[in-house]
Amino acid sequence: MAVKEFAQQSLSEITNNHKDGASQLARRCLQLVAEYGQAIETTQPPTMEVFRAQLFIYIKKLQAARPSMVAIENLLQRLMVSLNNWPQDLAEAVDYVGEQVQVIIEESNHAVVESAVQMKALIQPGSVILTHSISSTIIEVFRQCLHFSVKAIITESRPGNEGVMLAKQLSDLEIPTQYITDAQMGLFIQQCDIALVGADTVLTDGSLVNKAGTYLLALAAADHHVPFYVCSESHKFSKKSLKDIGLEEKDSKELKPPQLTSVRARNIYFDVTPRSLITGYVTENGIDLVK
Amino acid sequence: MAVKEFAQQSLSEITNNHKDGASQLARRCLQLVAEYGQAIETTQPPTMEVFRAQLFIYIKKLQAARPSMVAIENLLQRLMVSLNNWPQDLAEAVDYVGEQVQVIIEESNHAVVESAVQMKALIQPGSVILTHSISSTIIEVFRQCLHFSVKAIITESRPGNEGVMLAKQLSDLEIPTQYITDAQMGLFIQQCDIALVGADTVLTDGSLVNKAGTYLLALAAADHHVPFYVCSESHKFSKKSLKDIGLEEKDSKELKPPQLTSVRARNIYFDVTPRSLITGYVTENGIDLVK
Repeated sequence: MAVKEFAQQSLSEITNNHKDGASQLARRCLQLVAEYGQAIETTQPPTMEVFRAQLFIYIKKLQAARPSMVAIENLLQRLMVSLNNWPQDLAEAVDYVGEQVQVIIEESNHAVVESAVQMKALIQPGSVILTHSISSTIIEVFRQCLHFSVKAIITESRPGNEGVMLAKQLSDLEIPTQYITDAQMGLFIQQCDIALVGADTVLTDGSLVNKAGTYLLALAAADHHVPFYVCSESHKFSKKSLKDIGLEEKDSKELKPPQLTSVRARNIYFDVTPRSLITGYVTENGIDLVK
Repeated sequence: MAVKEFAQQSLSEITNNHKDGASQLARRCLQLVAEYGQAIETTQPPTMEVFRAQLFIYIKKLQAARPSMVAIENLLQRLMVSLNNWPQDLAEAVDYVGEQVQVIIEESNHAVVESAVQMKALIQPGSVILTHSISSTIIEVFRQCLHFSVKAIITESRPGNEGVMLAKQLSDLEIPTQYITDAQMGLFIQQCDIALVGADTVLTDGSLVNKAGTYLLALAAADHHVPFYVCSESHKFSKKSLKDIGLEEKDSKELKPPQLTSVRARNIYFDVTPRSLITGYVTENGIDLVK
């Protein structure tokens, strides 16, 4: 595949991926950088300077592809900083990029597992956990709690229906799971012991950007005195404000709305949960209790 | 159609109707009582005593068909009380039932319009109104506000997608409308001036039984200091508690859930919004401000 075509297709893949959580998508972006390096080498061997410039331009484009998911920007930033010891030879440089990518992917995977291990300390055996949307970190929490007899309540997560994929993964883990509409979160909060979500981005004021509906879950949890935890690798934390990142709006066709005069469908993918509604943040570095 | 078949089909129609609000469905039940009377007369003319007994048994079954929608029980009760002056002749009795049914349907329609007129007094011109699920009363509010330049934000209302039908009706009224997923209510509450819903039932403690998700909307409204009004005819008010009526659970297939071991889909149709989250109840009798 030509380099330009690879860049276009891969950027489109990241922009339109509504099935994976931010952490998984960030690791996919790292992988794409390695593949992009290979594509340059294979199809149009340039000078080292041109190679690095092309690679960094591509990284910048990936960083801008999902503004509401700061882990993508942060992990790619981490990669750029780590690329500080370039070999002279182009083939070696391509391998070097691949190696650094693997190091950071492994670091990220390790952070996900470690975050889940930290989270496990807050979960009583037999607990019922209500989660919204899909998150590789939250699936890892369920994996860590396999011998804890925990149960899950999960949401459809319209319009992308990430809940279907999450249901499959929890079924593979044999976790007893109730699958509900997003609108039923206020009913089922009464059955659960912990509300638990991953993060797309944690803003500088400690508020959480996550799949739309997360804020409603946090409100219901607070109203029922159910703890509401956020579990994610620390790369989800940002020094940015909501104004800096904005909330992505996707194609409204995803809602399959009625086509009518004067009716406009809206599809904002993320909402913001204020820090005051969050019981605690749990990362690979430990537990940060807010209240 | 045989009487028994008519009864079965019509009861099934009421039980499985997820497209209409409680008020509309209650009027449909009244209409069915009149039609049931005609069906008895046409197919198996009994004695007056048997006719009345059959009719009242059918009414009792209709009253039990949708326990979370108290207007059905209340309007049919109103009908039974009004049937206190029976003619001797069977044909006349059938007409008599039909006439009483029409009187109460007209009373109910009048109450809906009058409730909407009362509600209009609380709406500023140009207001943006966020509503959830479908309600003939709320559509009437929009009709009353046609020259007020109001705008609507409406929800899909999974799993029945009543929002599609509401969108059509608002489009016919040429009301500028934004159509959102239920999960986006917490985002769009920031754009609206009033949150406004109909009622399935108002319980004796002043809490509201309405389509699942209403409670989440009320929480978001309270968190953003947006007034949350309930507009309905007074027949929605009940002396019952939640324990008395329960919350109907419908077929989980409506969610089109993934068929997986250990995953069970749930489809509870209604939730309960406590009185403390409600700014005011508006009926044909006036405005009752809670806070």
